[in-house]
Amino acid sequence: MKQLFSFILFLVIPTLVFCQSPKVIVSITDFGGKAGDADCTPAVIKALGACKKHKSTELVFPKGTYHFYGDFGIDKYCFISNNDEGLKRIIFPLFNLENITIDGQGSEFIFHGFVNPFVLQDSKNVVLKNFSIDFHRTFHSEALVTAVREDGLDLEIPENFPYRIFNGLLQFTDFPKSSNVQTTLKTTEIYDYWGMLEFGTNKRETAYMVKDYGFSGTPLIAESLGGRKVRIFKKQLKATVGNTLTFFYMNRKYPGFIVSDCSDVLFNRVTIYHCGGMGIIGQRSRNITVDHCKVTPARGRMISATADATHFVNCTGQITLSNNLFENQMDDATNIHGIYVQITDHPAPNEIVVKLVHDQQYGFDFIRKGMKLELVHGTSLITYDTLLVKDIQRLNKEYTRVTLYKNLPAELITGDAVAEILDYPRIHIHDNIIRNNRARGMLLNCRGETIVENNYFHTPGAALLFEGDAHFWFEQGGVRNCIIRNNTFDNCLFGVWGKAVIDVAAGISEGFETSRYNKNITITGNTFRIFDDASLLNVYGVDGLIWKDNKISKNNEYLPARIGQDRYIVKHSDNISIDNK
Amino acid sequence: MKQLFSFILFLVIPTLVFCQSPKVIVSITDFGGKAGDADCTPAVIKALGACKKHKSTELVFPKGTYHFYGDFGIDKYCFISNNDEGLKRIIFPLFNLENITIDGQGSEFIFHGFVNPFVLQDSKNVVLKNFSIDFHRTFHSEALVTAVREDGLDLEIPENFPYRIFNGLLQFTDFPKSSNVQTTLKTTEIYDYWGMLEFGTNKRETAYMVKDYGFSGTPLIAESLGGRKVRIFKKQLKATVGNTLTFFYMNRKYPGFIVSDCSDVLFNRVTIYHCGGMGIIGQRSRNITVDHCKVTPARGRMISATADATHFVNCTGQITLSNNLFENQMDDATNIHGIYVQITDHPAPNEIVVKLVHDQQYGFDFIRKGMKLELVHGTSLITYDTLLVKDIQRLNKEYTRVTLYKNLPAELITGDAVAEILDYPRIHIHDNIIRNNRARGMLLNCRGETIVENNYFHTPGAALLFEGDAHFWFEQGGVRNCIIRNNTFDNCLFGVWGKAVIDVAAGISEGFETSRYNKNITITGNTFRIFDDASLLNVYGVDGLIWKDNKISKNNEYLPARIGQDRYIVKHSDNISIDNK
Repeated sequence: MKQLFSFILFLVIPTLVFCQSPKVIVSITDFGGKAGDADCTPAVIKALGACKKHKSTELVFPKGTYHFYGDFGIDKYCFISNNDEGLKRIIFPLFNLENITIDGQGSEFIFHGFVNPFVLQDSKNVVLKNFSIDFHRTFHSEALVTAVREDGLDLEIPENFPYRIFNGLLQFTDFPKSSNVQTTLKTTEIYDYWGMLEFGTNKRETAYMVKDYGFSGTPLIAESLGGRKVRIFKKQLKATVGNTLTFFYMNRKYPGFIVSDCSDVLFNRVTIYHCGGMGIIGQRSRNITVDHCKVTPARGRMISATADATHFVNCTGQITLSNNLFENQMDDATNIHGIYVQITDHPAPNEIVVKLVHDQQYGFDFIRKGMKLELVHGTSLITYDTLLVKDIQRLNKEYTRVTLYKNLPAELITGDAVAEILDYPRIHIHDNIIRNNRARGMLLNCRGETIVENNYFHTPGAALLFEGDAHFWFEQGGVRNCIIRNNTFDNCLFGVWGKAVIDVAAGISEGFETSRYNKNITITGNTFRIFDDASLLNVYGVDGLIWKDNKISKNNEYLPARIGQDRYIVKHSDNISIDNK
Repeated sequence: MKQLFSFILFLVIPTLVFCQSPKVIVSITDFGGKAGDADCTPAVIKALGACKKHKSTELVFPKGTYHFYGDFGIDKYCFISNNDEGLKRIIFPLFNLENITIDGQGSEFIFHGFVNPFVLQDSKNVVLKNFSIDFHRTFHSEALVTAVREDGLDLEIPENFPYRIFNGLLQFTDFPKSSNVQTTLKTTEIYDYWGMLEFGTNKRETAYMVKDYGFSGTPLIAESLGGRKVRIFKKQLKATVGNTLTFFYMNRKYPGFIVSDCSDVLFNRVTIYHCGGMGIIGQRSRNITVDHCKVTPARGRMISATADATHFVNCTGQITLSNNLFENQMDDATNIHGIYVQITDHPAPNEIVVKLVHDQQYGFDFIRKGMKLELVHGTSLITYDTLLVKDIQRLNKEYTRVTLYKNLPAELITGDAVAEILDYPRIHIHDNIIRNNRARGMLLNCRGETIVENNYFHTPGAALLFEGDAHFWFEQGGVRNCIIRNNTFDNCLFGVWGKAVIDVAAGISEGFETSRYNKNITITGNTFRIFDDASLLNVYGVDGLIWKDNKISKNNEYLPARIGQDRYIVKHSDNISIDNK
């Protein structure tokens, strides 16, 4: 027994010593990586392999411009909520790592082709700091409007957005390949687009009151006008000569940073110039901080990320967004929510079959043995029971069979939904600038304490949107305690994406009289700069809202779009107090 | 010790008894499956789960028409040689099964949507018999040519190929959805096409001397002429009024039967009316028999499978194709070959980095520890060394790092290739009818004994093609002992896919004087029905070929296309004997 004890000590002591060992600092140059044109990906793969051997590592990139190609990245099939699943070619695969810092020391990371820059999976204590990411060829494209015609538009396409007229259609392509092409089959890569959106070239924001033109993935009929001038044929297109037409990328396969099932992740002074999807998408993760980061277009471009700047799904702990700049991305600055799955069948008294309905949620497997689920009516979003999961059987990326410890309540009907009863995260969003992007500012759909303060918003849609539904997006929302204070809302709603600067909505189509989806919202000390009679507040299905001490000042920086609209719209709500109504 | 012995007996005896236990026969009806409109997929999944519990099972489908939808199929990411990789939704997942027979008793299996009918993975002793597979909506589409114009063609599209004119473009779609659509996001499914090919409507074969029209995936500009009549705009299209224009499906994601890493698989009286890829694709498998099967279009259609009827890659043991009908598929009746990977780097004296170059070979991981590889010059296909694999490291679906037991020879250069030295299979192809499909008949690229006898060929291209190269398709060929006897070659070469009825080629661009890629071919007792002076035999890079006692008879069933061409063309070959030259 004494020997055994000694043996255990023999095992334990070095471990303790090792735990306290200082951070090992390694440089990418130790692994053959260097700034310049060469592919730095093999060095990254080697370096991350080496980091795994230490308890705590800092991987440093001496300041410079580094290029990353896909050839030697890692393959992994990723299901990414609100983005597009697929077999990803990953340049920085941060899988199962602990205590790792990647310090770019101000470097620029340029990615080439259809690759995923960073995927964090099952990792803890990760710091990403002091670098920017960009793509050699952006996933979206842009063009200047040179003429507006009855049958379409004339455009001039800058050289950084290569294109061709092929079979009478406009296709965006990659740059001509300089190196020897390895395969004879790969010809030109096509960057498909699903629509267009007009931006003011000088104001560098979505053009006044424009809407998306969607083509459902079909390319536009077009002809060359010589040089880089192109005529696109489509009736009833409106635009202003001199403005910039941006072409949406078809999908969201290439987010900047995917954070799945991780904890304690810090983004610090990271700049996302571009990515083909969301900037940062966190899912099923605990404690994520985004501080002093930027999502902003590189010089010569109008668009930064092609979807939301940040987005968090079924996360826990604390989410902090502080001191960031989120501008010109193609969707909201953030959205923090849970996920509903729809009950499609209940084959036994204690068994349900649930479906991830939205195709950008497929494979988002969040139900686990022992988990508590809330049972929600699909149409009213009223939670009417709590279920404890006894067992699950994943049928495929859409369907899961769930066995419960108790029998289902009688009022359950097919089409109801379940969501995880999370340790909902505390949200702190402060001192950020959100401007000029398509759509909204922040989507607040989290039941943890949510504080939004000292931010600046200049968004074409609602600055703050509360929603949640179980019939379209299947995003679980419903704040419980939300404070919005000391923000500046500067001429928001100059576009089409919103009913009010602060829009507290809910996807409720039945049970209006009783369903109160959002609760306890305080809006104080904010400044609203406005240019017309747009609503400042739209309240629907809320219990408890205080509007107090907010300043409103009018200007004429935009043409008025709404006349005589109610400043405050309140429907199907209780305990609403608005001081200057 | 005696107790232990008793205990072992206690374990062994029931096992022995169990091994000898008779085949358990189960019916799909035992699992809730039934003929009719309802989705039979859940019953299949249950039934296959039950089969796994028995040592030997026969799963019977009482004769009827069964429908299979994707909702409850199994997801698995599949890399399928010469087809398209992807996350497949599989209806019959035959994974890790032994001694299983699926007897359809003459049933029809109808598949709906983007699903994979059968995937066999790591299974042994599998018999599939007495059923047909088809798809509710075919992946390809067809139309009748009603007028030929300077600027395009007028078409009439039959009702079984739904389409729309959308944004001025022709798109093929699914049928309108009858059931309630689960997700609001899924709109119309599009069946993309990459090109067109004309068929004779009455002759039911590719039209005389037509070639593929490829559009690289862009849809055609089109307008509606009312009813189901459509005008497509594209200059220089040729066609004959009354003929059928078939639209190629864009990819090969949905083969009928995928057989990977299996042994002893028998297809017996299975009919493939349609699939979106090859009919049967076997890879890294041992002993596959296809007997009394058909690949043939369903009534009202011109096309059966949208690619090769059958195809075998890196297989071993015995491959038998007997008594089958292969007609109207969109590519060859079979191709039996190995795979070359290209050496892209040799970072150490005993280390190479190899790449799967063709994108339809990505993920075809065939190199294993202890495997023997042949080392081949990329341009001459001359094997110049044998390597024994010490270790491998898969980098991603394209690249693998291979460590060898010995140092690499000095003559190795980047761009050379390696292939597995297989227990090459014995091939017996007899009593089949191959006709009216696009392209060729059989591609014979196997080093095991290959016997082709008593078959009937009526193909627009070469009836038999030998090839193999390490620069484009990266398919390893090179027969060693091939007998072609007593076949009928009936008016082959009425299309553009071949230089001779029997075309013995090789992808050699250097070393003509010494490289003899195909060896020991005997061609005897065959009948050649011909309509012009097309070559019967083209020989290139061969050592040993006997042409003896073959009958040739001429007819005028087609317009002559070739005048004064040599019947026998021999280049860079040795030991060629042609009796009636």
